[in-house]
Amino acid sequence: MFKKILYPTDFSDVSKKALDYIKQLKDAGTKEVVVLHVIDERVINKIRHHSDVGIDAEEIEKSMEEHAQEEISKVEGELKESGFEVKSLIDKGVPFREILKAEQEENVSVVVIGSHGVSCIEEMFLGSCSEKVIRKSSKPVLVVRR
Amino acid sequence: MFKKILYPTDFSDVSKKALDYIKQLKDAGTKEVVVLHVIDERVINKIRHHSDVGIDAEEIEKSMEEHAQEEISKVEGELKESGFEVKSLIDKGVPFREILKAEQEENVSVVVIGSHGVSCIEEMFLGSCSEKVIRKSSKPVLVVRR
Repeated sequence: MFKKILYPTDFSDVSKKALDYIKQLKDAGTKEVVVLHVIDERVINKIRHHSDVGIDAEEIEKSMEEHAQEEISKVEGELKESGFEVKSLIDKGVPFREILKAEQEENVSVVVIGSHGVSCIEEMFLGSCSEKVIRKSSKPVLVVRR
Repeated sequence: MFKKILYPTDFSDVSKKALDYIKQLKDAGTKEVVVLHVIDERVINKIRHHSDVGIDAEEIEKSMEEHAQEEISKVEGELKESGFEVKSLIDKGVPFREILKAEQEENVSVVVIGSHGVSCIEEMFLGSCSEKVIRKSSKPVLVVRR
């Protein structure tokens, strides 16, 4: 029932709080955690369309990837230390769509997600990712509050 | 983190499925379960306003209460058998409001709810109860699918 968890994270505080719940679920039978970070391609596209302001979209994208890689390694280490098998994924796309896709492809038992699973700024512009996941998911979802 | 669970139920199949998840959470530290059934006062009020069709609202209300009492006893027995402390509540009101109120008053650690926590017919007329709980809750919510 809780064997394989999908943990979508934007590395925010509320995502980190969700991680504490995952650790607690170990005793309820969790063996494996799939950590997923989605780089929001809409953000990159927006920057690309404003190239006149002198921001290099490719550079931003590269730095987002590096940041994601760094942060996801920390999460992976923390979970492994707690005795979980871990698979880390960095995807590019629209977060809620990638989350729902991973849910299916990885055939997870449950999704554990922060109630604001995308950073505040993105959320204001793009709408709440978590709510879409909750509404459209075919798996149980544990929503952790700030 | 999972010590005290609020389990709102309309005794539907998806609510029963949520019960299986609660049992599984015992090993993650759950000690106590507050079982809550809300008799939707809006349904009774509707019947009251259509007294001309010959349905006795008081009789319906009484039969809803009896049904609730019977069903909640079964749930209580099942949970006690699994080793939980149980508190059963039957409230009257608007389900999502009563659920949010109980969440605070009982100071629960987490809410475990079926994705369609009100029966289908009510839902069509009155909108989804679970979604409102998820959106407005200050506690973590585990949403279990049909």
